[in-house]
Amino acid sequence: MKTKTTGIGIVGLGKVGQGALRLLRKERQRLLRMTGVDCRIVLIAEIRPGAARGTGLPPSRFTRDWRKVVSHPDVDIVIELIGGATVAFDVITAALKNNKHVVTANKALLALMGDRIFPLAKACGRVVGFEGAVCGGIPVIRAIKEGLIANRIRSVFGILNGTANYVLSRMRFSDMSFTEAVREAQKKGFAEPDPTLDIEGIDSAHKLSILASLAFGSFFPFSKIHVEGITGVSAPDIQYAADMGYVIKLLAVARMTASGVPCLSVAPTLLPQTEIIAEVNDEYNGVFVHGSATSHTLYTGKGAGALPTGSAIVSDIIHIASYGNAEPFRYAFYPRGLKGRVVPIGSFVSEFYIRLKVRDKPGVMAKISGILGRERISIATLVQKQNAPDGDAIVVITTHGTEHRRVDAAVKKLNRLSIVDGKAVRMPIINDLYH
Amino acid sequence: MKTKTTGIGIVGLGKVGQGALRLLRKERQRLLRMTGVDCRIVLIAEIRPGAARGTGLPPSRFTRDWRKVVSHPDVDIVIELIGGATVAFDVITAALKNNKHVVTANKALLALMGDRIFPLAKACGRVVGFEGAVCGGIPVIRAIKEGLIANRIRSVFGILNGTANYVLSRMRFSDMSFTEAVREAQKKGFAEPDPTLDIEGIDSAHKLSILASLAFGSFFPFSKIHVEGITGVSAPDIQYAADMGYVIKLLAVARMTASGVPCLSVAPTLLPQTEIIAEVNDEYNGVFVHGSATSHTLYTGKGAGALPTGSAIVSDIIHIASYGNAEPFRYAFYPRGLKGRVVPIGSFVSEFYIRLKVRDKPGVMAKISGILGRERISIATLVQKQNAPDGDAIVVITTHGTEHRRVDAAVKKLNRLSIVDGKAVRMPIINDLYH
Repeated sequence: MKTKTTGIGIVGLGKVGQGALRLLRKERQRLLRMTGVDCRIVLIAEIRPGAARGTGLPPSRFTRDWRKVVSHPDVDIVIELIGGATVAFDVITAALKNNKHVVTANKALLALMGDRIFPLAKACGRVVGFEGAVCGGIPVIRAIKEGLIANRIRSVFGILNGTANYVLSRMRFSDMSFTEAVREAQKKGFAEPDPTLDIEGIDSAHKLSILASLAFGSFFPFSKIHVEGITGVSAPDIQYAADMGYVIKLLAVARMTASGVPCLSVAPTLLPQTEIIAEVNDEYNGVFVHGSATSHTLYTGKGAGALPTGSAIVSDIIHIASYGNAEPFRYAFYPRGLKGRVVPIGSFVSEFYIRLKVRDKPGVMAKISGILGRERISIATLVQKQNAPDGDAIVVITTHGTEHRRVDAAVKKLNRLSIVDGKAVRMPIINDLYH
Repeated sequence: MKTKTTGIGIVGLGKVGQGALRLLRKERQRLLRMTGVDCRIVLIAEIRPGAARGTGLPPSRFTRDWRKVVSHPDVDIVIELIGGATVAFDVITAALKNNKHVVTANKALLALMGDRIFPLAKACGRVVGFEGAVCGGIPVIRAIKEGLIANRIRSVFGILNGTANYVLSRMRFSDMSFTEAVREAQKKGFAEPDPTLDIEGIDSAHKLSILASLAFGSFFPFSKIHVEGITGVSAPDIQYAADMGYVIKLLAVARMTASGVPCLSVAPTLLPQTEIIAEVNDEYNGVFVHGSATSHTLYTGKGAGALPTGSAIVSDIIHIASYGNAEPFRYAFYPRGLKGRVVPIGSFVSEFYIRLKVRDKPGVMAKISGILGRERISIATLVQKQNAPDGDAIVVITTHGTEHRRVDAAVKKLNRLSIVDGKAVRMPIINDLYH
């Protein structure tokens, strides 16, 4: 086996960058022996002072100017790890134009500007590796791109955000409130000081954009995805769902519809407890893929962290160093085919969970069922729960398959009723993972 | 993207061959569009008469002589699907010597003669793809070889045989006896008329040989694996295990030990019900990999069947057609490094479940605990179950960590006691999947 020396430039030495660097140095000899690829760290750009400390590398390998990395003649692959969609875009496009391959874990950038990055890479004859952008250490990008290439993908269901999953798991297993669970996640390092991107489903939607683009062979940017976060999920909802045999997960869903156009959404969703994906708990991620030939496969593991994401980055480096631009699996991110058309969530049909708090008065049920009836929503179950301490009653309804917009219209009307206290909560139920 | 025409020769058109052929024909245009690879079926060898029927291919594409396939000038990749370790070996070696790449789903052959096949492939500058040999449609070979390349693999736990898993799942969920469950599996097509290879753990061990060889970078043939089947697992064992929070699975285990040498085994094993791999049920397979960087990742899906395995074969074809022998991930199956050394199962330490039927007489417990004590086996729990209809008592014991040979010696002595009725059952318990 011939040895190939591959020059690595890193832009951004945060947590993930440090993880990738640690792996590249620690595993260098083993990787060389096993794959013939010798990964040499050429230059690292980082603006924080003292970045070299503890890396074991001489200060001469560090710069504050990313332009020096993307233009360095010995750099073959640029690892972009600064995140965000401004400077990162400049780094990646400059690297490609300088004939460098790129490896990135930047899901936001790909979800927003994948249709500019990948065509540029193609024009430059370079590869952009992004295994680290979705589900950290789980090699799910390679699985969908290469492993499942013989399949038409029918649906992808993903638990794509470890923070949100950790929060919901704590609420379920430790009877915590949403706020307590978020605080614990922050303490354990599973949530950022500002957890908005994770909790509001935005990070999940970035990742779903990438998975859907791979699965359906066209670019589906972030803007095409219906996004709801988990701030509206309360501890009683988790309990009521459990009473009916369901688990609430922040679920990213990409489903091909009968019209040949997919529907994409991220929302807290009720899943049957008996489904294996419902058992993906705590900070773990999981992706459940329905392919025409394989039927259902599930991939789970840690979705974030320095070493898991570093592992994905190193696998991309070895892949690129070995195969270069022979990579044939270029079927996503090009604005052709479906051209990113989606079924709007409003006309997508789901079963629903609706929970509301009402004054316990005669005629209440008639009013509620009247509103649902007028929206042609068919009730599957309706349970009045033990009264709340204030004398109000909790009503939990599940519906048969209904278009989202009908449910949203009904909920709006319910919220206007004087007998309804606070706001009704509604979440889709997915019983047909296998259809 | 340039189009590469790839000539495919198939040897053996059984169920899997038909699945692969169907996918190659049905997905040909899509694969061409997405990957630039045009898969052309050149010649198919099959000895059964009427093989061409229903394939939509002209009889001229069929032969009874596999030598015509492996020597055909238009064949670039030979798909070996006849199974077994005799003719299949001749097919593969002849194909490699004729400068053809090979794709195979033949786990038995690789587990027995991988150390002859892979060095030959290397010498010929060809690739042997074998994604279909383990876990059918789940791209777990590619995951371990490429996706987890940055990791030192510490352990692999696998539910690798769908038949055995189906039988144990039926026994657990439908209160069937072993014999009833096997009969149902046969009726549903999940078990062969002679299910020995599956039920006795041999097929699992073939697959574990492949996974361990990849994971630990040396060839670990079938002969290095301790193998036990599930014929000794009774419905009451499943119940007693459940009472303690365990599920019994036919588990393939490859664990690196502190001595730097792994221990390899296939055996019915008690796993905590709360583990996600314990939720891999029915005909599904699952592989749980502990990597140094990713920590734990799990891959599950259908482990067999015409289309799932066909999907794996097609992914290998596209991979080889695209990358050819640039494949760098050649680190397994070469007799170097560990040279296939293993820790013998006898000196491997496990917790154990022991179940025996005894005459309900005074002094029985003293005799049992005396025997265990003399083998220095420390008892964790001991429960005497409700008496059997014949007045005998069932005793269920769990132990702390003990070398296998001590437990086997104790069980032998227990079985010789006149107060013990029939044979004691002993199975390892794995509580430390994460260590």
